[in-house]
Amino acid sequence: MALYVQKFGGTSVGSIARIEAVAERVAAARARGHNLVVVVSAMAGETNRLLALGAELAARPDPRELDALVATGEQVSAALLAIALNARGVPARSLLGHQIRMRTDGAFTKARIHAIDDATLRAVLDEGRVAVVAGFQGIDAAGNITTLGRGGSDTSAVALAAALRADRCQIFTDVRGVFTTDPRICPDARKVDQISYEEMLELASLGAKVLQLRSVEMAMKHGVPVEVRSSLEDGEGTLVTEENAALERVVVAGVAVDRDVAKLTIRGVADRPGLAARLFEALAEAHVSVDMIIQNVSADGRTDVTFTVTKGDLAAARPIAEQALGEEQSGLAVDETLAKVSIVGLGMRSHAGVAAKMFRLLADAGVNIAAISTSEIKVSCLIREAQADEAVRTLHDGFELARPD
Amino acid sequence: MALYVQKFGGTSVGSIARIEAVAERVAAARARGHNLVVVVSAMAGETNRLLALGAELAARPDPRELDALVATGEQVSAALLAIALNARGVPARSLLGHQIRMRTDGAFTKARIHAIDDATLRAVLDEGRVAVVAGFQGIDAAGNITTLGRGGSDTSAVALAAALRADRCQIFTDVRGVFTTDPRICPDARKVDQISYEEMLELASLGAKVLQLRSVEMAMKHGVPVEVRSSLEDGEGTLVTEENAALERVVVAGVAVDRDVAKLTIRGVADRPGLAARLFEALAEAHVSVDMIIQNVSADGRTDVTFTVTKGDLAAARPIAEQALGEEQSGLAVDETLAKVSIVGLGMRSHAGVAAKMFRLLADAGVNIAAISTSEIKVSCLIREAQADEAVRTLHDGFELARPD
Repeated sequence: MALYVQKFGGTSVGSIARIEAVAERVAAARARGHNLVVVVSAMAGETNRLLALGAELAARPDPRELDALVATGEQVSAALLAIALNARGVPARSLLGHQIRMRTDGAFTKARIHAIDDATLRAVLDEGRVAVVAGFQGIDAAGNITTLGRGGSDTSAVALAAALRADRCQIFTDVRGVFTTDPRICPDARKVDQISYEEMLELASLGAKVLQLRSVEMAMKHGVPVEVRSSLEDGEGTLVTEENAALERVVVAGVAVDRDVAKLTIRGVADRPGLAARLFEALAEAHVSVDMIIQNVSADGRTDVTFTVTKGDLAAARPIAEQALGEEQSGLAVDETLAKVSIVGLGMRSHAGVAAKMFRLLADAGVNIAAISTSEIKVSCLIREAQADEAVRTLHDGFELARPD
Repeated sequence: MALYVQKFGGTSVGSIARIEAVAERVAAARARGHNLVVVVSAMAGETNRLLALGAELAARPDPRELDALVATGEQVSAALLAIALNARGVPARSLLGHQIRMRTDGAFTKARIHAIDDATLRAVLDEGRVAVVAGFQGIDAAGNITTLGRGGSDTSAVALAAALRADRCQIFTDVRGVFTTDPRICPDARKVDQISYEEMLELASLGAKVLQLRSVEMAMKHGVPVEVRSSLEDGEGTLVTEENAALERVVVAGVAVDRDVAKLTIRGVADRPGLAARLFEALAEAHVSVDMIIQNVSADGRTDVTFTVTKGDLAAARPIAEQALGEEQSGLAVDETLAKVSIVGLGMRSHAGVAAKMFRLLADAGVNIAAISTSEIKVSCLIREAQADEAVRTLHDGFELARPD
């Protein structure tokens, strides 16, 4: 008898009819003999509705109280799904963060999971029930309600699968799986049957918003097999798993694009130790998350330092970039008209010339590259945002990722 | 420094503007130097909205899950009020049933409070914070969420006041206090400044829906002074307290009317031991709550047994009344066109002739009495529902309860 953790997001439980459909799906899995832990998000729109109520009362609502407020969204979904399951003759029980002792740190609105006491969950499963767990929420050491941040229900599901050593963690979503690139840009994008944690991490952080980044990190750390599949139609999804012989040995697994990019270039920086540290420490203190960092040492003792942030962080980053280095810099240039295209694949490790092929493909398509950044299994290029779709299609074709028909 | 428990009902927290008004009121009490525990209900309409969602999924939703579902209503109110208070510079913290270990039995949807561990509450108060408690909810021994039944937030407030030995429990509502009768029927009805627990109990159970019956029982048991007052305007309310010298020594404290009455009369019941027990045991097993019971032994060894139930319980009571006594009865008569008017007052104990005066006043007004029931401090008469308003005004005038202007 296999133990599955199944996670259904806000859209999947967004209405009474959708909750009925989820109950049918859970009942069917149960009928196939699986033990089930089902993790649910708040009904679509509910979290924003609650946040808006809080925002009416305070410019900066108390974070502890915000968590107590929004955690009700998942509680409602869990209770409703348990009602629907019990009504179908499938014994089920809703469980909240404090009931399964989902212990987190005390960082309200963005807590991290420390430990799960699996005794309550195992007892519910041993009684032959489906455990319906409110995602996104936990409690800190003092019993305060915490939440895991946006998309935290994916993390809840993977954490539960790890704690229970589940056979699989299934993330039901509104897409059929992980694709070689965005199907809205490339209609012949192909669903990938299997992908490694490392590749998925690079894709998740690059704007393929199928799985929450932290949930992939946690799955990799604990070796939890994660399957992304559709809650709207049947059919196998994408299995995210260890790198192994069964994985498709492709050089490039996918092409990702991220349009939320602002590039800052600090000109004429003195080439002396500690200047970069001073700049990026100042950015970190201001909670600005920096993505790409590019620096070339120049011959005359002065250099340009380029980095990228999200457009939302630009307002915070700009004054720091202007002032951090004082006399040691000669100017700042900001560009908000760029996008980042990336190719990701384990095969790059053993295949030379992948980056070169990417640059050649882009050049032949007339796409100019403003900056380049690479990791072991990824190459990212900043290009003009207006050329992003063209670049994605060029790379998807050039690396032969299309459906094999 | 006095400790007050303040309770605000669903109408008082029914909108963001109302929550702001409650926050102002709490801040003002705080500024006067009081320690405060504030108990809130769900925003008006929220509990019904949640129950409707559950009802869409199951004809009889699982009671455990219904409690997990509706308990979110009070959680939202508590978090929002805590946000509003913190935004005003009044340190506040929302607390849920599981956080203050409001222990109840396991009777979902109608749980009874067993114990409150006041350590968490005292710690919050000792930190100089206002404790904002979600009313209506508790946890059972296994950590399941329970609710106390409709109106249960009054009971939460009184239970907390008892556990903390608070100086006063203030119930803020949409009326100014307890009146000598319904002001919609008698425009000259007078607000009572003080009333005894016993009188309030009789009035609460007789349809004066100001305070929940169980909360008054609990206040009496633990000697908690309860003040009913308006959340919409300032001014003293009504203090419900022990019978003492300061209480107004009136013969009749108030006139109550209850229109939710169905009368059942079983005709020709054999006058033998055990028949009444058999009947009322059967009704109790069917969870029918019986109000008045009237039986006169007759000369010929047969008698009529009359009892009243709410109109909602009539469908369950009727077949039992038809069959419970089998051959030992000759027929059943049901009357749904009645109302019950009652006079209540501690002074009745020492004043003879109060009941007789009531019957005379009704007779002079042409109101016929269908049945009579009395207790130590109450006389109730069943009359035609069409004459109920007339009867209330007659009694209110006859016992001189009107405003002294």
